[in-house]
Amino acid sequence: MKDEINIFSPATVANVSCGFDVLGFCLESVGDNMLIRKTKKKGIYITKIKGDFDLPYETELNVAGVSALAMYQTLNVDFGFEIEIDKKIKPGSGIGSSAASAVGSVFGMNQLLGNPYNKTQLTQFAIKGEALASKCEHADNLAPAIFGGFTLVKSIVPLVILEIPSPSNLYATIIHPQIEIKTFEARAILPKTIPLNNAITQWANFGSLIHALHTNDYDLIKQSLNDVIVEPHRSKLIPYYNEVKKTMINAGALGAGISGSGPSIFSLSKGVETAKHVADNVSNLYAKTGIAFDVYVSKINTQGIQIIK
Amino acid sequence: MKDEINIFSPATVANVSCGFDVLGFCLESVGDNMLIRKTKKKGIYITKIKGDFDLPYETELNVAGVSALAMYQTLNVDFGFEIEIDKKIKPGSGIGSSAASAVGSVFGMNQLLGNPYNKTQLTQFAIKGEALASKCEHADNLAPAIFGGFTLVKSIVPLVILEIPSPSNLYATIIHPQIEIKTFEARAILPKTIPLNNAITQWANFGSLIHALHTNDYDLIKQSLNDVIVEPHRSKLIPYYNEVKKTMINAGALGAGISGSGPSIFSLSKGVETAKHVADNVSNLYAKTGIAFDVYVSKINTQGIQIIK
Repeated sequence: MKDEINIFSPATVANVSCGFDVLGFCLESVGDNMLIRKTKKKGIYITKIKGDFDLPYETELNVAGVSALAMYQTLNVDFGFEIEIDKKIKPGSGIGSSAASAVGSVFGMNQLLGNPYNKTQLTQFAIKGEALASKCEHADNLAPAIFGGFTLVKSIVPLVILEIPSPSNLYATIIHPQIEIKTFEARAILPKTIPLNNAITQWANFGSLIHALHTNDYDLIKQSLNDVIVEPHRSKLIPYYNEVKKTMINAGALGAGISGSGPSIFSLSKGVETAKHVADNVSNLYAKTGIAFDVYVSKINTQGIQIIK
Repeated sequence: MKDEINIFSPATVANVSCGFDVLGFCLESVGDNMLIRKTKKKGIYITKIKGDFDLPYETELNVAGVSALAMYQTLNVDFGFEIEIDKKIKPGSGIGSSAASAVGSVFGMNQLLGNPYNKTQLTQFAIKGEALASKCEHADNLAPAIFGGFTLVKSIVPLVILEIPSPSNLYATIIHPQIEIKTFEARAILPKTIPLNNAITQWANFGSLIHALHTNDYDLIKQSLNDVIVEPHRSKLIPYYNEVKKTMINAGALGAGISGSGPSIFSLSKGVETAKHVADNVSNLYAKTGIAFDVYVSKINTQGIQIIK
């Protein structure tokens, strides 16, 4: 069995407009690289962090460390693991930075152990790391990172994750304005109660989106990507949100919305050419704002987290 | 072209636990018979109503008449239609009595006219009849009656109806306690706002149910048939609701819930034998209550409303 392994731990988009708190999808062109290595010394050690994000080396304070510990405590082994993180996804970006760290460690450890745990069990461990970052237990970024494609987290207790198929020609375009929104702050802005009528609209759209993904119906994806619950509140936290969304849709995107808790904004398009056109147009728009930003175009990553050969 | 036509207009179950206001399915063994006949005299006439339900003959006050008029007003013809209704579904039963009337007239007229209108257009006309009965425009019983199978009414304006596939071995068992609950009364008991957390649970279950229907996953159907929004309120209007639900599930049903706005209670089962077993057990239970009731077992009717040869 190998003693070390290199991992690509992907960025992810959670919520996806109408699927707040339960739906997510996985990206292919953005993610962290991680190295997991068996050590003679027992325990979990964060030994290297690349990237200018001031992340803690203390295992109990590091997202990858906490999820690794959750798994490690179930093992009866006379060795330990060290973790190196090449952090490429900026924390607080809204594309699953903490989730990538949380799943990378447990996926890598599981590989080095001969895969004793299944994907749902790995998600269960990773939830502990994710909770450190976001102050609550959720899996809407973890699940797509581990399973790939689109995932629906049906429930957390018990943890039930559904893999939703998606059309093969679906691409995401994401703009990440370089401002930080903390997940727990984005949660605090949400109302505790919502109008029943809006909830009905939301689950009609959500059921419709699940149906559209099953039937490769791009037009129905377009009709379903609406969010009447969360977007009206959280979009206020994102500079030029409405202009970005309008630009993306005018450039041909099927729909656009807040990625996770923001500030990133995602769109979905049919075909890579349209997705690139969306990227060009939204880059032109945001260049005028004076706010630094990144733009990504990515196919939906149906494999999820993977070993780098 | 024929001058008259006999129609079987099926009963339907709306809401289906987690799909409040948007989901419904069609029954095979319960429904009204209707006869639609071309007349030399222009206009719409209700000429015969069988069944002891004291339904009005005035076209503008009769559900089948109102939907027929909505369609008739779009036609430029020098003849009229008369409608005979053999009403078998008791009004206020919660299994789409008004919807069956509303769709029967327009479906039959459309047939006699050579089918100028598609199913969505027929639903649009039928909404006018349904609104007479329930005081609001909705299509969650109309759509499954016209399309058959499971339907998702994505939106009313514009009217978008999705046909959801379902496993071939899925059967419904329905108990109809002989008390009347008016749709508008059942609506009045609902809260105007709901906790966001409950809404998230509901759309997780709803998305999961749509996925389960697509993948023939009976176990996931079972896990998804929960209603945290409406059932806690409306179940109070139905005598022995909790006992009925428990009995159905203990007898092997995948799940149970309020049919439409009640008082009927539906359950879904894998296989006709289980559905019959559920019917037997729930009949035994309800026989002790002193309240008159009917029990139905039905395959999911994938054809919907149809011509009787």
